[in-house]
Amino acid sequence: VSIVTLTTDFGTRDGYVAQMKGILLSRGPADLRIVDLSHAIPPQSVRDAAYFLRHAVPRFPPDTIHVVVVDPGVGSARRPVVVRSHGQLLVGPDNGVFGWLLKGDEEAFVLDADPLGLPEPSATFHGRDLFAPSAATFATGIPPERLGLAPVEEPLHRLKWPVALVESRRVRGEVVHVDRFGNLISNITEPAVSGLQGEVHVRIGHGESVTLHDTYSAVRVGEPLALYGSEGLLEVAVREGDAAKRLDARVGDDVEVTCRG
Amino acid sequence: VSIVTLTTDFGTRDGYVAQMKGILLSRGPADLRIVDLSHAIPPQSVRDAAYFLRHAVPRFPPDTIHVVVVDPGVGSARRPVVVRSHGQLLVGPDNGVFGWLLKGDEEAFVLDADPLGLPEPSATFHGRDLFAPSAATFATGIPPERLGLAPVEEPLHRLKWPVALVESRRVRGEVVHVDRFGNLISNITEPAVSGLQGEVHVRIGHGESVTLHDTYSAVRVGEPLALYGSEGLLEVAVREGDAAKRLDARVGDDVEVTCRG
Amino acid sequence: VSIVTLTTDFGTRDGYVAQMKGILLSRGPADLRIVDLSHAIPPQSVRDAAYFLRHAVPRFPPDTIHVVVVDPGVGSARRPVVVRSHGQLLVGPDNGVFGWLLKGDEEAFVLDADPLGLPEPSATFHGRDLFAPSAATFATGIPPERLGLAPVEEPLHRLKWPVALVESRRVRGEVVHVDRFGNLISNITEPAVSGLQGEVHVRIGHGESVTLHDTYSAVRVGEPLALYGSEGLLEVAVREGDAAKRLDARVGDDVEVTCRG
Repeated sequence: VSIVTLTTDFGTRDGYVAQMKGILLSRGPADLRIVDLSHAIPPQSVRDAAYFLRHAVPRFPPDTIHVVVVDPGVGSARRPVVVRSHGQLLVGPDNGVFGWLLKGDEEAFVLDADPLGLPEPSATFHGRDLFAPSAATFATGIPPERLGLAPVEEPLHRLKWPVALVESRRVRGEVVHVDRFGNLISNITEPAVSGLQGEVHVRIGHGESVTLHDTYSAVRVGEPLALYGSEGLLEVAVREGDAAKRLDARVGDDVEVTCRG
Repeated sequence: VSIVTLTTDFGTRDGYVAQMKGILLSRGPADLRIVDLSHAIPPQSVRDAAYFLRHAVPRFPPDTIHVVVVDPGVGSARRPVVVRSHGQLLVGPDNGVFGWLLKGDEEAFVLDADPLGLPEPSATFHGRDLFAPSAATFATGIPPERLGLAPVEEPLHRLKWPVALVESRRVRGEVVHVDRFGNLISNITEPAVSGLQGEVHVRIGHGESVTLHDTYSAVRVGEPLALYGSEGLLEVAVREGDAAKRLDARVGDDVEVTCRG
Repeated sequence: VSIVTLTTDFGTRDGYVAQMKGILLSRGPADLRIVDLSHAIPPQSVRDAAYFLRHAVPRFPPDTIHVVVVDPGVGSARRPVVVRSHGQLLVGPDNGVFGWLLKGDEEAFVLDADPLGLPEPSATFHGRDLFAPSAATFATGIPPERLGLAPVEEPLHRLKWPVALVESRRVRGEVVHVDRFGNLISNITEPAVSGLQGEVHVRIGHGESVTLHDTYSAVRVGEPLALYGSEGLLEVAVREGDAAKRLDARVGDDVEVTCRG
């Protein structure tokens, strides 16, 4: 069984995703399974796609093929690639979307219409003309190296994860993601905070200070709190509410953890 | 073949649904099929999830496994459960999301990381850490009772369906759902109205009175009407228009059916 | 393996799509695969559905079954049909949604509850009561002609594609679609423009004139350009921006291509 996942910024009002699915089913093996991850990545936001994939890809089984199309530079010099990472294949533009998954020692190949037996792709839709048919070919069990694709020579586009600054009596980081519920997720991990003594307080920008708890239910409905989220990252939330609105905060805002004790 | 459906309020902009799919595919059987029901349940609206499932679950084949994650109380005392209902398995929080499917005599078990062989779940994402891996295990053919899960002792969280009031010359109910098209769906059924003589009129709140018809096409485009919807519930609609906007109506508004004859 | 795709204007906040999936899985063959194409067609917009399908259906493999439910006239005289087209089956209302796929010589049958062994459908939801169970039956391998369905007698509802007007020194067309990114897609094809000499300019309505290029990257970020899109249609775009907003343009606006040379 071959699994191909799709992550795009196409939405589903237009037919772009549907066209890719048609190509995958037409060219892939009979038992191909398509799994939608997201078509709601903010338009052309490479950074949001990279954050999304950083936490999703490691959950998937070996040999999963991930097709990612968030591609503001389609038709320009950015390379179309397939990368072997986490025992899986990543197919998409080398523009940073895979930037937080890469360690620097990945096998990677440049996708090229000719060795893949494809016509020249359109200038605007490599998702349909290059990435989907490539993934369909890999899904039949033919690995990239058998297709005569050129290995990637220049380093792949990696992204630097912002590391929080740990001081003796405080930790300074930033908001790295705001989710649908308005939770403000920071780059500060539990080990970074563990050296602080006493009651821990968290402040976003110049906003009010909130207290660290284990679960949402430690505060009343509508009250803000800080807690460690599902990826082990410190986040500021409002119980059954929207912290981003309540605290007027966004990606990139400073997060400061201090202690009183 | 094992079918696992997903119903959440996560949206797909964030990676939460993708992470659950990764867990299902990593831990489930090779022939597992994931079916998206909805990721657009209004955030943390247990009632909307319950209404959604009331009409969807009975349509599915035996042994379908439904994973539901609308979970404002994640990390608090609400129990994570698996319930056998309609010949299918319901996996999610016991917070009312299954409340309109339950009759009170269901077999149910508390989901617990230890007997399931899972690490301690995060405080904020039981969908990924408890519900998805539990469903993956059930999908391999191991029933809940074989896993050593504790039976639920206290009654499950049921919801009371609001029953319309049938009087001699009128029926009084309320709007129980407003759908995407702005149709105002009430709790009034055809049998409840059948005792009324003469031409039937329907009024939402203090709004204009509309006439009951068999199909949208009985009125002109843009005109309001009442009709029995796909679940046999009386609804007020505007042909090719939005009744909720036109009549400024919402869930909970009074619905009154009267007759002139 | 049987593939059934779904294209609707239902959204996924309501349970309509979920109910259809339940019916398909309950009545279809064990190896049925459901593929979501879109549930985000603008409500009741037959034209948007037709444009969507025009470009998506030809990408799918033979014997794919496409269920389409954009059906403002549900319950009225418009016929429910199954059409054999592009070696595939189209199931839905004969209201124009298939209008840009049809050549006029298609085999087509009227869907009728009785020969399909179905109860009388509800007046408002043929997607669940007629189209989904019909598709499930076709997916088991029983072709429409074996079910005793009546052939369609009157011609199917076709749509006329607006053809651009080619003059000696200009081409005149219109905007036929605006996509999620704000790209303004016209009905003007590359061959229509090839007769013009010199530098080609494109104007939407009375807006500014933009230049034709091969790829987005030919202009700076935020700058407008014209290029041939993924279906070979001339479109006006803004690099990493939204041309519809920038140029205040919409479907139906005039597009004029001229040359200076």
